[in-house]
Amino acid sequence: MDSNKSKTRISEILTFAEIKINGSSPWDIKVNDERFYERVLADGALGAGESYMEKWWDCDRLDEFCSRVLKANLQEKIRSNLKLISSVLLIKMFNKQSQSEAFINGQKHYDIGNDLFTNMLDKRLVYSCGYWNNANSLDEAQENKLDLSCRKLKLGPGMKVLDIGCGWGSFAKFAAEKYSVSVTGITVSEEQAELGSKICSGLPVDIWLMDYRDLREKYDRIVSIGMFEHVGYKNYRTYMEVVNNCLKDDGLFLLHTIGSNDSSKFNDPWFTKYIFPGSMLPSIAQIGTAIEGLFVVEDLHNFSADYDKTLMAWHSNFVYNWNAIKDQYDETFFRMWKYYLLSCAGSFRARKNQLWQIVLSKRGVPGGYVSVR
Amino acid sequence: MDSNKSKTRISEILTFAEIKINGSSPWDIKVNDERFYERVLADGALGAGESYMEKWWDCDRLDEFCSRVLKANLQEKIRSNLKLISSVLLIKMFNKQSQSEAFINGQKHYDIGNDLFTNMLDKRLVYSCGYWNNANSLDEAQENKLDLSCRKLKLGPGMKVLDIGCGWGSFAKFAAEKYSVSVTGITVSEEQAELGSKICSGLPVDIWLMDYRDLREKYDRIVSIGMFEHVGYKNYRTYMEVVNNCLKDDGLFLLHTIGSNDSSKFNDPWFTKYIFPGSMLPSIAQIGTAIEGLFVVEDLHNFSADYDKTLMAWHSNFVYNWNAIKDQYDETFFRMWKYYLLSCAGSFRARKNQLWQIVLSKRGVPGGYVSVR
Repeated sequence: MDSNKSKTRISEILTFAEIKINGSSPWDIKVNDERFYERVLADGALGAGESYMEKWWDCDRLDEFCSRVLKANLQEKIRSNLKLISSVLLIKMFNKQSQSEAFINGQKHYDIGNDLFTNMLDKRLVYSCGYWNNANSLDEAQENKLDLSCRKLKLGPGMKVLDIGCGWGSFAKFAAEKYSVSVTGITVSEEQAELGSKICSGLPVDIWLMDYRDLREKYDRIVSIGMFEHVGYKNYRTYMEVVNNCLKDDGLFLLHTIGSNDSSKFNDPWFTKYIFPGSMLPSIAQIGTAIEGLFVVEDLHNFSADYDKTLMAWHSNFVYNWNAIKDQYDETFFRMWKYYLLSCAGSFRARKNQLWQIVLSKRGVPGGYVSVR
Repeated sequence: MDSNKSKTRISEILTFAEIKINGSSPWDIKVNDERFYERVLADGALGAGESYMEKWWDCDRLDEFCSRVLKANLQEKIRSNLKLISSVLLIKMFNKQSQSEAFINGQKHYDIGNDLFTNMLDKRLVYSCGYWNNANSLDEAQENKLDLSCRKLKLGPGMKVLDIGCGWGSFAKFAAEKYSVSVTGITVSEEQAELGSKICSGLPVDIWLMDYRDLREKYDRIVSIGMFEHVGYKNYRTYMEVVNNCLKDDGLFLLHTIGSNDSSKFNDPWFTKYIFPGSMLPSIAQIGTAIEGLFVVEDLHNFSADYDKTLMAWHSNFVYNWNAIKDQYDETFFRMWKYYLLSCAGSFRARKNQLWQIVLSKRGVPGGYVSVR
């Protein structure tokens, strides 16, 4: 296809989402390099993301652009089927989340530099969706979410809690301080373990650099916030078996995860290449199959729209504080990170991605579980 | 196995659940016919139920007996594997919920006589789990449940609502009166359609004798309370496709169903033979697979313990009002019905059965769905 034909085709496709090339709406795109059209047709989502990083195009409201594209299901139209098939084969041949690789995947993203995250996140360094009900700021939304999680887990003084994928220890610190529990947090990121241990010093909190498959002890409660996205579909069952083994019979498990509407076995290729290698979003069918015979579903809470707000707040902090950290990065990184935050916000806005908090018990809570919002 | 050996074996098995034969606790069983032991070993759950109907054994608190048996997982020990295999084969050979049989199945139970149900249920004739939060009576619990369902559906004046499996029109009447909506209810029971139409007369409610697979119109909201249990696993996907087709793009669907912890393809054999032919309880994995690509899970509420209370209230009404209806039935029917209500109560108490209300949207509610309790 020659360059003009490609432009016409992209233009036609975008019309379905009411997006114009070089138009005047904030979600319209400005194309700086005419090679953009052919690249997107050839490489789909990967090409769109990479060519944005390379300044081939711009958009005032990338979040709205992405939301509109996803709502109109344009993704399917620009995706190359041949590439799709080869991705599937690649995944089938290699288990991308084998135990040795989990550390590499975790390191790639979370060891990118604590400075970036301290300048982007709330004051507690919570790197997952906040709960914006009655919140006026990111700090409040994250505190709300931590408290919501503790209340859903029905924490009581003296309980022994496990946090799988503890990040910089935000949940551990909050739960230990406000609910008088002891917490063991595990992470595969060295930078998280180090800073997390500092943040939680003086509290009954241990943070271990450890893979979840090496867990052996028993806990009253288990929480996992924003970590299941890194587990990979081949390991969903193993993950649930580990949690089941580590949870006391009368315990509760809170799974907080981004979810997908489809049981796909791969994530967006740009996202996988640049942001979270090995990440994958589970569907209800996949979660249901993974927990079968292990857990009773006591409650499921979907607050996807809150991730849109959270990501927009992160983006705003990132742009506002860029001067403080820009010496460590370059402009391509800046555009990559912007694309990551805004395209994800758009994806939640379009309701293509879900945010689920699921409360699970091993045998059903006697007398019933009272759900909390 | 001779009679004494059978008795010893049953006695040993029951010890795991702390149940004694001819003991003095209310959940102990009194055996009136020594053939009981061999029959239970040979026929499992079917034999236990049938021999209860035939007065071979008694129990002061059948609900507690069943709850203890289920909690201790005795069922697996007394189940004959050979029978299990043959049930599976039977199910695979015949789709037990084919369209022509749906009417027969519905008739068998719901056409058993309205008198029975008016003497057992609340004043609105709601034949599904109540919501006992802040309720002091069955009437209040059912009204709570109807209101909870309307609030979860975010009903507004003038909306067109479809009720799949409308029973005697309790939801239709409540929603039309309190939320000013128009309701189309469908049922496969003639007695329900006739009495339901009377109950809803003067309101914008239509009750049709109709199979869900014949639905063609579009609705703002769809509700299905205690009907999915009759659909059968082979039809789960078809059912969800029908609901998807009949729901407007910005609509909401509330699925209220009993659930199972396992993806089984058959129900308890006694229950299937005597109470609900063709009934089957879905798991989260089965529901997740059935809705894939059709619906977004916005909310899941588990209030299983409320079904224990509801069934105990029905049992109490049934026993209390037995004199008023006993001329139409016999003692075997009395014992059968008692066994049905109390064994189900025990099953919910043991948390072997779940009660889920699941809110589903087609594309995700823009801005997010706010969950209601």
